[in-house]
Amino acid sequence: MNPLDNIRVVLVGTLYTGNVGSSCRAMANMGIRHLRLAAPNLQNGWDEGERLAVHATDVLGSREEFATLEEAVADCVAVVGTTAREGLYRQHVKAPRDCAADILTLAATGPVALVFGREDKGLLNEEVAQCTHLVRIPVDEGYTSINLAQAVLITCYELFTASGRYQPPHEKAPPAPQAQKAQLMKNWSRMLQEIGFMKPEQADHFMQGFHRVFSRGVFTKDDAALMLGVARQAIWAKEHGQAGVSG
Amino acid sequence: MNPLDNIRVVLVGTLYTGNVGSSCRAMANMGIRHLRLAAPNLQNGWDEGERLAVHATDVLGSREEFATLEEAVADCVAVVGTTAREGLYRQHVKAPRDCAADILTLAATGPVALVFGREDKGLLNEEVAQCTHLVRIPVDEGYTSINLAQAVLITCYELFTASGRYQPPHEKAPPAPQAQKAQLMKNWSRMLQEIGFMKPEQADHFMQGFHRVFSRGVFTKDDAALMLGVARQAIWAKEHGQAGVSG
Repeated sequence: MNPLDNIRVVLVGTLYTGNVGSSCRAMANMGIRHLRLAAPNLQNGWDEGERLAVHATDVLGSREEFATLEEAVADCVAVVGTTAREGLYRQHVKAPRDCAADILTLAATGPVALVFGREDKGLLNEEVAQCTHLVRIPVDEGYTSINLAQAVLITCYELFTASGRYQPPHEKAPPAPQAQKAQLMKNWSRMLQEIGFMKPEQADHFMQGFHRVFSRGVFTKDDAALMLGVARQAIWAKEHGQAGVSG
Repeated sequence: MNPLDNIRVVLVGTLYTGNVGSSCRAMANMGIRHLRLAAPNLQNGWDEGERLAVHATDVLGSREEFATLEEAVADCVAVVGTTAREGLYRQHVKAPRDCAADILTLAATGPVALVFGREDKGLLNEEVAQCTHLVRIPVDEGYTSINLAQAVLITCYELFTASGRYQPPHEKAPPAPQAQKAQLMKNWSRMLQEIGFMKPEQADHFMQGFHRVFSRGVFTKDDAALMLGVARQAIWAKEHGQAGVSG
């Protein structure tokens, strides 16, 4: 099973439907689709919430509502609270990245709640006391107040990236093998002499420079093929005394 | 110097001031404060943008505006584009976490642009072609469309966490040393026999169970002191035949 299917995002005492909607979109981006509202205290209508959920209105529409946090997390094997503050009951707080693997391990065994407090005052001490795990999102000391949906996004992002459900993109072309790079150096050396860029006795010196330029970072087979084409064309153009497309 | 001070968030052709304001708040949360707008195409007034910037109105107010992306990144030593798509000019795309350290190394030498495209169609091919680096934010295949300010947040978050400007929270109390845990087992064994929970011949068996319970995860000095207090008080209560506060 996919442990992300066992994650329950629980918003406690939320004031604005826009934050609920934006949270739904953030959840869906990160492959998490179960939303619970505990003791919602909504000050505006659902128009704003639905507009900001964009194409995640199914997440919004299938939300569950509970009168208290206690009821919202009753079936959960772990309750992960998010807190911006230090203090009472918050001694064992960790960064989300540092406990993502543990949370996923627990989510493989049953429902796990990710709990987010009110926009204005977060979680109350009696709510923090119900959490088995606490996380604090890394933020700059100069501006620690993070938007509710942004906090949902980062917490879900850390679980998603830790879940292995996502393959980081990588360069399609493989790195150029050393033989292809040697061929490139040889062909460029010939070309640069033929077009009069350098004399034979200068070749060693200049080719060190080109070797350096072509050795910054990964140099792929495609990169090498492109630069070999330049050498071929420059020699052809010099021999034919004009620009054109080589055979 | 702090390489985050050299980061320039460049929003290209942005449509909604709300996304600009939310981006400012996300940037400030992650210690990044320089915003540039390239070819802005704003469809609404700044009221919404200022409201969503919340306490990051200084980031919004000090923004720079440019007619084109080319002008907005002219002074930058690296141009990091964000793209949700595969295809032309996007062969060398990486996940933000996989290139955060490289970006910070470049930012230690001069301004580095983080470029974000339009809400509806992202970056155009001719804009992608100006980027020296490309990143794609990890998202679930089921819902790949990420909000602009959310994309800004995750990219800035990866740079902030990689910058070392943030110390992850850690348990204040140190782990309990083995001698304290041995004392705990000894005192609990005595207490559990005195209150009649187990007979002496059962002690080895039951104490294995308590040892297991107290060995899940980190067990701190404070945890051990708390549980030692329980044993002390239970023995006191049994000897005095009543509940009360021990000496």
